[in-house]
Amino acid sequence: MTDTTPRTALTLLGLGDMGTALARTWLAAGHRLTVWNRTAAKAGPLAALGAAVAATPAEAVAANRLVVVCLLDDASVGSALDGIDLTGKDLVNLTTGTPAEGRARATWAKERGARFVDAGIMATPSMIGAPEAGGYVFYSGSRGLFDTHRAVLEVPAGARFTGEDPGHAALHDVALLSAMYGLFAGVSHAYALIEGEDISPKDLAPLLSEWLGAMGFFVGNAAERLSSRDFTTGVVSNLAMQVAATGTLVRTAQEQGVSAELISPYLELMARRLAADPAAHGVEDTAGAITLLRRPDRGRAGAQAQAGR
Amino acid sequence: MTDTTPRTALTLLGLGDMGTALARTWLAAGHRLTVWNRTAAKAGPLAALGAAVAATPAEAVAANRLVVVCLLDDASVGSALDGIDLTGKDLVNLTTGTPAEGRARATWAKERGARFVDAGIMATPSMIGAPEAGGYVFYSGSRGLFDTHRAVLEVPAGARFTGEDPGHAALHDVALLSAMYGLFAGVSHAYALIEGEDISPKDLAPLLSEWLGAMGFFVGNAAERLSSRDFTTGVVSNLAMQVAATGTLVRTAQEQGVSAELISPYLELMARRLAADPAAHGVEDTAGAITLLRRPDRGRAGAQAQAGR
Ligand SMILES: NC(=O)c1ccc[n+]([C@@H]2O[C@H](COP(=O)([O-])OP(=O)(O)OC[C@H]3O[C@@H](n4cnc5c(N)ncnc54)[C@H](OP(=O)(O)O)[C@@H]3O)[C@@H](O)[C@H]2O)c1
Ligand SMILES: NC(=O)c1ccc[n+]([C@@H]2O[C@H](COP(=O)([O-])OP(=O)(O)OC[C@H]3O[C@@H](n4cnc5c(N)ncnc54)[C@H](OP(=O)(O)O)[C@@H]3O)[C@@H](O)[C@H]2O)c1
Repeated sequence: MTDTTPRTALTLLGLGDMGTALARTWLAAGHRLTVWNRTAAKAGPLAALGAAVAATPAEAVAANRLVVVCLLDDASVGSALDGIDLTGKDLVNLTTGTPAEGRARATWAKERGARFVDAGIMATPSMIGAPEAGGYVFYSGSRGLFDTHRAVLEVPAGARFTGEDPGHAALHDVALLSAMYGLFAGVSHAYALIEGEDISPKDLAPLLSEWLGAMGFFVGNAAERLSSRDFTTGVVSNLAMQVAATGTLVRTAQEQGVSAELISPYLELMARRLAADPAAHGVEDTAGAITLLRRPDRGRAGAQAQAGR
Repeated sequence: MTDTTPRTALTLLGLGDMGTALARTWLAAGHRLTVWNRTAAKAGPLAALGAAVAATPAEAVAANRLVVVCLLDDASVGSALDGIDLTGKDLVNLTTGTPAEGRARATWAKERGARFVDAGIMATPSMIGAPEAGGYVFYSGSRGLFDTHRAVLEVPAGARFTGEDPGHAALHDVALLSAMYGLFAGVSHAYALIEGEDISPKDLAPLLSEWLGAMGFFVGNAAERLSSRDFTTGVVSNLAMQVAATGTLVRTAQEQGVSAELISPYLELMARRLAADPAAHGVEDTAGAITLLRRPDRGRAGAQAQAGR
């Protein structure tokens, strides 16, 4: 296969649910696409739409400079690409992973003569090729690669470049997903509380949505406080009062026969922050509790701090 | 003291931060107000604004038919009101408590010849008398009382009547606060993940806000599913895939040196739902996990179910 239009020709490894959705948008937009999948049968429908089907990952990689990978996990990326010549390739890894995996994969790609960006897809397959659905993809790593291929990368979904640290796309991805599960946990607890009561979840829903929308102020408030390290100016609900009020939440869960497992850890974190220095922390709001989550002796920041000693 | 305009005369017990804020709005709106507070000095500024100051709770209660109570907790309501004649009174309890406390206090009031509504204040003192701030109060219990006094109750903040079960105002209050702490927990974890990285919380904030706004669909989605008990139709991200992806979240927390205490319980709840019947629950979304939170042998619903056996 020869690239006559190298700007719009690309290779895609991985035709699972996500890879297949991506492939369809590139084909629909008129891009020349070479695909490979471990289970070859999944390539059939795409071949019918005009995709070139490679028999091996090596053949697929050789076909184009831009190589997009969307496999199950980082280990599958290794097993598909190890030993293949990547010299001069532009490798875009849409496979979900951790920041450390993104960084290690970037080093691995560089050693093999390829430019590399890691990515985190903030969309489901049904949101791919549907801009109105609001899905998008975080990218980080080689800015040169991203700038070169931005137009083709934006075909399936919006693209947001989060910087040259190849771990930062995954970090943004995981940060947003983690926050989402917190939201889901809180909402789940609320619904569990009314189960068996003469209150319809559908009646609680608009109240919850409105309230959580208003309480979304915490996102910006916490960002301000973490940046300024000022946890006390302009506090509306102080930590001492909030901790005192948590008893009502826990006792209500008990009365309703609902496990408090989803909300207890945060209530306990607030209490720990208060207990560490009641006079100083009692007049804060809850953003200060965030500082307790990082273990100073552990992790990347900790490792760097220790190395600097 | 004689009520010449009984529709606008009321008594308020409790002049803490919240009670004082309430009192100011009623005085500003021209209502005749009698106040009492355990620590008498707190009544001074309100007396200067025209409030009548009662020396005892009994005197304050005797002054008006409508008696609003805003004390620390349910025990302080008991200690202020026990032994006082409540015959013919309309008692509004703005003191935070559990649903069971609201129900017990309603029975207690009825036994003493008073109508009763319990309430849950979804506002801070600074939001009282400031309609644009969006604060409001849940009320439940005697609809007759609520209808009679709605106008005066709406002076400090909007009023939402949640039904005649006197436990339901507190239940709505606690449900919304619990959901809020879930949101705070998720957001806190997200910020902890980026600490020490070259990512400003202020840059993450708009991404978080936008994402959590979009993920707010869960509130309505879960309500639909809990009502229909259909957890599988139209699933966008299935539970099997979400549980498989949780490893990335946990490993990222470890890499970043962040305790996963705030998100683990929800990830584990999803895993438990999946493990209970992988084939059936793997194709659900996450709303089905809510059904695991209620302990069937415990709590009010459980007690009722057992009583019905
Ligand atoms: N689906 C979503 O909603 C979603 C959203 C955001 C991000 N993502 C991410 O996108 C990536 C792909 O997801 P998906 O939904 O397409 O998953 P999927 O439907 O399970 O497909 C997995 C893909 O990985 C391949 N694969 C697995 N192990 C392999 C190995 N050892 N060697 C070579 N190929 C291997 C599979 O090949 P076979 O066909 O031969 O099994 C298949 O192409 C994942 O990292 C996922 O986290 C997905
Ligand atoms: N502040 C808020 O943001 C907020 C928001 C929603 C709901 N609420 C609820 O509103 C209620 C009042 O809150 P607040 O902020 O006004 O609290 P606060 O400033 O701590 O005031 C507590 C009030 O309760 C009185 N009190 C305490 N123990 C008593 C006892 N044993 N007998 C008689 N009086 C007693 C205090 O009297 P002394 O002056 O003599 O101590 C004071 O009037 C609470 O249930 C709270 O949960 C408050």
